[in-house]
Amino acid sequence: MDFVFLGTGAGVPAKSRNVSSIAFQLLEERGAVWLFDCGEATQHQILKTPVKPRRIEKIFITHLHGDHIFGLPGLLGSRSFQGGTEELTVYGPKGIKEFITVSLQISGTHLMYPLNIIEIEGGVVFNDGQFTVTALPLEHGMSCFGYRIVEADRPGSLMVVKLKKEGIPPGPLYRRLKNGETVKLEDGRIINGRDYIEEPQKGRIITILGDTRKCENAVKLGQDADYLIHEATLAMDEEEMAHSHYHSTTAQAADIAVKAKAKHLILTHISSRYLGDETARLQAEAAAIFPKSVVAEDLMRIKIPLYSEK
Amino acid sequence: MDFVFLGTGAGVPAKSRNVSSIAFQLLEERGAVWLFDCGEATQHQILKTPVKPRRIEKIFITHLHGDHIFGLPGLLGSRSFQGGTEELTVYGPKGIKEFITVSLQISGTHLMYPLNIIEIEGGVVFNDGQFTVTALPLEHGMSCFGYRIVEADRPGSLMVVKLKKEGIPPGPLYRRLKNGETVKLEDGRIINGRDYIEEPQKGRIITILGDTRKCENAVKLGQDADYLIHEATLAMDEEEMAHSHYHSTTAQAADIAVKAKAKHLILTHISSRYLGDETARLQAEAAAIFPKSVVAEDLMRIKIPLYSEK
Ligand SMILES: [Zn+2]
Ligand SMILES: [Zn+2]
Repeated sequence: MDFVFLGTGAGVPAKSRNVSSIAFQLLEERGAVWLFDCGEATQHQILKTPVKPRRIEKIFITHLHGDHIFGLPGLLGSRSFQGGTEELTVYGPKGIKEFITVSLQISGTHLMYPLNIIEIEGGVVFNDGQFTVTALPLEHGMSCFGYRIVEADRPGSLMVVKLKKEGIPPGPLYRRLKNGETVKLEDGRIINGRDYIEEPQKGRIITILGDTRKCENAVKLGQDADYLIHEATLAMDEEEMAHSHYHSTTAQAADIAVKAKAKHLILTHISSRYLGDETARLQAEAAAIFPKSVVAEDLMRIKIPLYSEK
Repeated sequence: MDFVFLGTGAGVPAKSRNVSSIAFQLLEERGAVWLFDCGEATQHQILKTPVKPRRIEKIFITHLHGDHIFGLPGLLGSRSFQGGTEELTVYGPKGIKEFITVSLQISGTHLMYPLNIIEIEGGVVFNDGQFTVTALPLEHGMSCFGYRIVEADRPGSLMVVKLKKEGIPPGPLYRRLKNGETVKLEDGRIINGRDYIEEPQKGRIITILGDTRKCENAVKLGQDADYLIHEATLAMDEEEMAHSHYHSTTAQAADIAVKAKAKHLILTHISSRYLGDETARLQAEAAAIFPKSVVAEDLMRIKIPLYSEK
């Protein structure tokens, strides 16, 4: 499980930061990539990374501003052109369906894979037992969502080495032990499966928010998150401007991370007014409030380890 | 007058060639830039050039395939965000208006300049006395146009140095001489204005075609052109594939240049199957038929001199 930041800038593309997109890679977990937002030239950024367009299984759109969606028609078309055949689902606010449908139809783009477009209204938008994705509205002057992704806990694995050491041979018995049953062996021993199962592997929580003012739903979505990705368009001295443009400052994002008891905070959607060294200043502003803060950079990759790997 | 090639690839973006766009700069002539096609990330390519988005006065779209239009909504929005206030006109086939309107409306993009969108059907699409732009349909399996831009001849300038040398002082008289009138001086001399006017400056002819099979209208549009820009998606040994995909080969483009008696041929829309050295092979194929052939590269700039500068 890892993030690849494809675009970490705000509003318009700049040389150093493209407009918004994050690839959330679930390669070990499900052989898939989920994209969050798809600003113009997201497919161009992907060319510079190991991300495979045909692996993209889901695209979650936070809101319909151009810097978050204008890369969609091209990415969808190229994924087909490059041989992608597996179904793809796009989730986003009302309007995303018309944008995609009109763009593909007018350009004569025929996809060679099934495309689902789901216009969401908040709540649980996806749940397959392995992952649950919940969306809640944020405050951005237009319909805008944040997404909370909760991985299910994985049952502990059977302690095969220990079982063999104690002379319990592999066989159908192992399945019953793994289910936690108590079993009587041929030699008369009585064995409780629960004594031979590792601790369950706790699922991870990832929160990816769209553009927003500081708001209560950001705290709800980010509660106990292993990684909270929050926009920080502006530095902490620009609180007024942030408010009037429906954006957040570094300090406001860090406040949200504290309130949510998140474990890590990643700041993105950085205004192009902050160049080079100023990124360090933005990070310091957040870290003064929430120490585990990082300002994202284009093409940055962040691995999210299993609890057992930490 | 010059071209800046912003994207010279076909279909999908590649690392070395972006999808289609050409900036035709008329800075000395009218302080303006005309864009031909606007594939995704055209605005990103512009960031690497001296081209100024607010100078873009007109955008001519050849056809509605995604690799020729998906950069439009972002470019139009960024031009506004970056302070462009002057009117901009987009010309293109039927459908271009719906694509732009829906994209801007759904994304909540409010332009701070007047935007005209003109759906063309061929013939003269623009004429202001200085430039005439004519469009004719090509053969591409969907409505697709080529554009011929004809610059008006400029009247010769008055030979001011010669007049002064002959003791004819500047004044209202000069305007009458410039109009070619015959004038009687105070000292009795009779002067014919036509003897004091330079040769007229012949206007240039530029032809920029969209994707097409080899076709008759390409010859018409390219007749006597100083520069003919023709697609060459494929090498000369792929004539069958070119035909079935409604594209041209290097040799076919060169044939058109010969038939049209063009002065220079620039090949673009090069398939990503041709990498590095193979570009030289493509150029050689065309040059064997039409010597003044060049394969365009991304960010290549070609100056088009006045006749008097040649
Ligand atoms: Zn936004
Ligand atoms: Zn085409």
